[in-house]
Amino acid sequence: MNIGILGLGLIGGSLGYDLRSQGHHVLGVSRRESTCQTAVALGSVDEASVDMSLLAVADIIFVCTPIALIVPQVEQLITHLSAATIITDVGSVKAPIVQAISPLWERFVGGHPMAGTADSGIEAAQKNLFVDRPYVLTPDATTPKDAIAILEEIVRSLKAKIYHCQPEQHDRAVSWISHLPVMVSAALITACTGENDPAVLQLAQNLASSGFRDTSRVGGGNPELGVMMARYNRQALLGSLQQYRQNINEFINLIEQKDWITLEAKLQSTQQARPFFTD
Amino acid sequence: MNIGILGLGLIGGSLGYDLRSQGHHVLGVSRRESTCQTAVALGSVDEASVDMSLLAVADIIFVCTPIALIVPQVEQLITHLSAATIITDVGSVKAPIVQAISPLWERFVGGHPMAGTADSGIEAAQKNLFVDRPYVLTPDATTPKDAIAILEEIVRSLKAKIYHCQPEQHDRAVSWISHLPVMVSAALITACTGENDPAVLQLAQNLASSGFRDTSRVGGGNPELGVMMARYNRQALLGSLQQYRQNINEFINLIEQKDWITLEAKLQSTQQARPFFTD
Repeated sequence: MNIGILGLGLIGGSLGYDLRSQGHHVLGVSRRESTCQTAVALGSVDEASVDMSLLAVADIIFVCTPIALIVPQVEQLITHLSAATIITDVGSVKAPIVQAISPLWERFVGGHPMAGTADSGIEAAQKNLFVDRPYVLTPDATTPKDAIAILEEIVRSLKAKIYHCQPEQHDRAVSWISHLPVMVSAALITACTGENDPAVLQLAQNLASSGFRDTSRVGGGNPELGVMMARYNRQALLGSLQQYRQNINEFINLIEQKDWITLEAKLQSTQQARPFFTD
Repeated sequence: MNIGILGLGLIGGSLGYDLRSQGHHVLGVSRRESTCQTAVALGSVDEASVDMSLLAVADIIFVCTPIALIVPQVEQLITHLSAATIITDVGSVKAPIVQAISPLWERFVGGHPMAGTADSGIEAAQKNLFVDRPYVLTPDATTPKDAIAILEEIVRSLKAKIYHCQPEQHDRAVSWISHLPVMVSAALITACTGENDPAVLQLAQNLASSGFRDTSRVGGGNPELGVMMARYNRQALLGSLQQYRQNINEFINLIEQKDWITLEAKLQSTQQARPFFTD
């Protein structure tokens, strides 16, 4: 199969490695000539170009640009394609993307491979990045069945775990387990650094250990990525944050009222609930 | 030196190993006869008894009971001691303990070795538990200098890092970096499990990965320990939680107002601030 990859970063480059190893002919497009050269030299793609028309012969195209560019790039891309071409994307938010692209292209299937590393760019791309990782697909009732089937077969060949859901369900689920934790964790850091006794702040910094390190990790991550989450998944994230604030209020009330029995019951329920997310 | 340990759990038992290896004669007291036998058999103490009078010959006594028992046990303990004996404790909250014991015993120095494992009990005790870990001491102006010096020498022999501060400063510092993260993290779990669409909840559980795992870890820990933190460090924790809620409100406001520039600046500041706590 001829497979196109638009956007040769961590995800696009890693897809290229795996798809080539499956015997597909992989065509890559990047906005930068140097990225095209690197991708070919590394063996992530068979051919690469800054010109989208390279993808005219592709049977299926993975759009792997940063989220803000997905819709505008697809708008340009489709001027080069025949109607049979399948388009999918790898954006970490689905509703706004699906809503924008579905009216433009019948054979579009939204997707989100949930794999990543702390690094980015074609140099960070790696083989087998998607093995055992979730890969969410968000087709709707109008998505052509054969397009879904072709994409699914490719995703299965990556050894990823496929999940199907509506775009809005995806966005709410990731707001809980990915986007909300970033804000929760960032607010922890900002609250601590707001301590106004310098001696206490210094002591807190000296005494912090694994508990603080883990709880603050995602809040100390890439700021641009955090803004992207908030910007593109704004409604779902606001809903999650408001729910979260209610829960913080409940903890504050229990401690104010010295209701240790209910507090312990609540902490027992969190102890019991966590393995459903982490096992 | 004759060193007493009252309470033979993880901390008391681990202290015993290290102090014996320094050549001290270690006397242990536990409420349970079986724990006394285990501690002697494991080599954590030289002698052990359920009777506090064993500690009458000790030069210094480490009180290592659960936090709720520290003050009542010290009240009993001092009836067996001569006035020269130094008492220190290892409680994770300092102000209420120092306030209660200082009027009872002149040669008392509050302490908090910040070492622990997920396990507890004498069987979990280990050698070198305190190496490179913070060990906070909270003497005040009235604490006899020679008592502080003797305790410091012992703590240095454990290869722990000594910090001095006021009990209230300790309690505020640990509320930021230890007790607040537990509540922040627990509220994340309760908020997520409050999702009322079962399909979204199931999907969230399936998609959760390292970000959620790290941010939720301390919130899924021992419920009794969480209650103890709230109960004994109530004022400091409430202060931290209220500050934290203000920060959550700020994040919500920025996202509601689509103020992406300020949100990015805030996330940049958390990215820059975190290494001061974790490096």
